[in-house]
Amino acid sequence: MRTDNSKIKEIFKDLPFSDNQIKVIESVFYKVNFKKGSKILKATDKVDYQYYILEGCLRTYHIDAHGKEHTVQFGIKDWWISDYTAFFSTSKAIMTIEVIQDATMYRISREDKERLYKQISSIETFFRKKLERAFAALQNRILSNLSQTATERYLNFIQTYPNIDKSIKNYHIASYLGITTESLSRIRKDLSKN
Amino acid sequence: MRTDNSKIKEIFKDLPFSDNQIKVIESVFYKVNFKKGSKILKATDKVDYQYYILEGCLRTYHIDAHGKEHTVQFGIKDWWISDYTAFFSTSKAIMTIEVIQDATMYRISREDKERLYKQISSIETFFRKKLERAFAALQNRILSNLSQTATERYLNFIQTYPNIDKSIKNYHIASYLGITTESLSRIRKDLSKN
Repeated sequence: MRTDNSKIKEIFKDLPFSDNQIKVIESVFYKVNFKKGSKILKATDKVDYQYYILEGCLRTYHIDAHGKEHTVQFGIKDWWISDYTAFFSTSKAIMTIEVIQDATMYRISREDKERLYKQISSIETFFRKKLERAFAALQNRILSNLSQTATERYLNFIQTYPNIDKSIKNYHIASYLGITTESLSRIRKDLSKN
Repeated sequence: MRTDNSKIKEIFKDLPFSDNQIKVIESVFYKVNFKKGSKILKATDKVDYQYYILEGCLRTYHIDAHGKEHTVQFGIKDWWISDYTAFFSTSKAIMTIEVIQDATMYRISREDKERLYKQISSIETFFRKKLERAFAALQNRILSNLSQTATERYLNFIQTYPNIDKSIKNYHIASYLGITTESLSRIRKDLSKN
């Protein structure tokens, strides 16, 4: 199924497009549905797509050499998700992306995205600015982690993902924060006292 | 002093520009010189510029809440340097950038860069691709650090900065690798045995 006009407005916010441009955009975004528990990509996969999340919740994680899972990112409504390291460099995936709540997304391929950039320059600007913010946020997160306590990191997490599904598992959050589930419980208990 | 044509070719490699475009580009890049030991920006500064390194070596570091220095990036010939988190988001600097070997650079302001994007779309594409690679490299470095031994991280460092000045201080490298200078010496000694 293809996107409809209102969805293009949802994805690209207030960017103005001509009727012709809307047709081009419609032709490269495909609606896809994934059930909870499914994996939209796994480590070592070829990564050809980026996804815009309409509904649902996803988790990107990396498994290190010792078999330990590290949650890199959650994906919620209005976020984009992929294994960007692989998507941008055309190398194999180093992440696994798991659906933790039934998801509806718009998928676009790398080739279509590059074509879109050439045809509609405002879309390249849109993604360039998004990438700048993502780069800044990633670096900021790393540096904050050096200085912040686990409680401060938990409060940041809540601020970053204010509408995240309440049914998200504690070990997912703990693995995002780099702490044990026991520490997470303790932090929540302490915060609820205040 | 303004850039000359050959320098534009150096910065933008094989991108073809018209004579008119070259004039526009020349008007927004300024050559600047910094002596070893000087700081081109400090934490809490306003960050309005990005720099292309023609010559020299620089170090970007973050000082955490406990006063500990973390080297985030080295800048060598043909690299771009800034506090990107601040440059992109117009927030205050969280990094300090120190000149560790006399540097000659081309400076561009955020406003001029945005204007350049509007006027010459191939430059926006050039920086968008650079940003994609930088994002992938940053994420890859974080994830590799989770799995790799200090020796592997040191070998990666040598590969990333093959031409880095030999006079760079050991504690800069150690702080980039997240190890002590004693560990760095041990790693080098072990590697030289093989």
